[in-house]
Amino acid sequence: MAEEIDRRVRKTRAALLKALLELLDEYPYKEISVKMLTDKADIAKPTFYRNFTSIEEMLQKELDNKANIIFEKEYNELHECTYLDEVTVGLVQNWADNETLLIALYKAEMDSKVCESFARYSARYINILNKGGTIDINSLKLRYFSGGIYCAVRTWLLSGRKSPIKELSDIMALGLFPMITNKAIHLSRAEKRDQ
Amino acid sequence: MAEEIDRRVRKTRAALLKALLELLDEYPYKEISVKMLTDKADIAKPTFYRNFTSIEEMLQKELDNKANIIFEKEYNELHECTYLDEVTVGLVQNWADNETLLIALYKAEMDSKVCESFARYSARYINILNKGGTIDINSLKLRYFSGGIYCAVRTWLLSGRKSPIKELSDIMALGLFPMITNKAIHLSRAEKRDQ
Repeated sequence: MAEEIDRRVRKTRAALLKALLELLDEYPYKEISVKMLTDKADIAKPTFYRNFTSIEEMLQKELDNKANIIFEKEYNELHECTYLDEVTVGLVQNWADNETLLIALYKAEMDSKVCESFARYSARYINILNKGGTIDINSLKLRYFSGGIYCAVRTWLLSGRKSPIKELSDIMALGLFPMITNKAIHLSRAEKRDQ
Repeated sequence: MAEEIDRRVRKTRAALLKALLELLDEYPYKEISVKMLTDKADIAKPTFYRNFTSIEEMLQKELDNKANIIFEKEYNELHECTYLDEVTVGLVQNWADNETLLIALYKAEMDSKVCESFARYSARYINILNKGGTIDINSLKLRYFSGGIYCAVRTWLLSGRKSPIKELSDIMALGLFPMITNKAIHLSRAEKRDQ
């Protein structure tokens, strides 16, 4: 029974997100109302308000949800990581697979909220890579990294992925590396050979 | 005569910006109308519309204007730069002196526009430091740098400047350095000694 409800909630949320992305092709974010959204998704307005208080909250929850899923996907790889650039390819790819959500967040001018979320998750990634060491989540370096990578990813997606994904994942690896204190992790296979 | 008009325009713009910053202490950005703004600034509504089409455009112009002033201020120092970290202290300080404008842009959710502006200006700074070399303004590395530094500066300002300014200017120098191709420029005096 709980599973059935869960499945229904998941379906509702997926329909709402799909409808929002379609509406964003036609209207500026600020002109989209909850009514327009529920009409498009063919869902009753009260159903929307049982799940969210606003479209912004809906987007924030979709972001947190997606970030959790990607984190769980990457969890094992992070534990076994030896070469940072090989993990960052997967990370960038996972976010690129959710391109439409990122573009919706951008269109909704929620950039600073995405950066905050990226900072929280980056800290979790780094803590695993550091094997028990912790990183100060409020550090300016972490904000520099997460804000920077968000902007680079956004530009990359908006340009239609003009550059190869490796360029982006290398920037990510280079930005993360100074925060990794675990000496068993190298930036890349090439960097290890150079030592 | 032209100077007189110029002076009047400058005064009007300063009064409008001051009024906007005061209103932002009381109201969320989205609730502030042009009428509220011109009433607060004691300026006629048509005067506002002679200068701007919207509050957002006003903020964008203030940002461009400020970025130009800071660029001109730094211009000579950039030409004579030998140690990057000594130039970035000045740059961070200049932006910190315009804290209220940056916070207004943040409250107006114009983060991505600030990042774009930072990217354009960063390219100009780097081109001077490279002495005639040029940097691709659309490069992902430049977006990483400008988005990162904006997020770090924003966090720093919103925290009430909890960390010393040197921490921020060092992050900035470290982020810029990989894009500097001019071999006569060093990251810091200490880095030069280490060579």
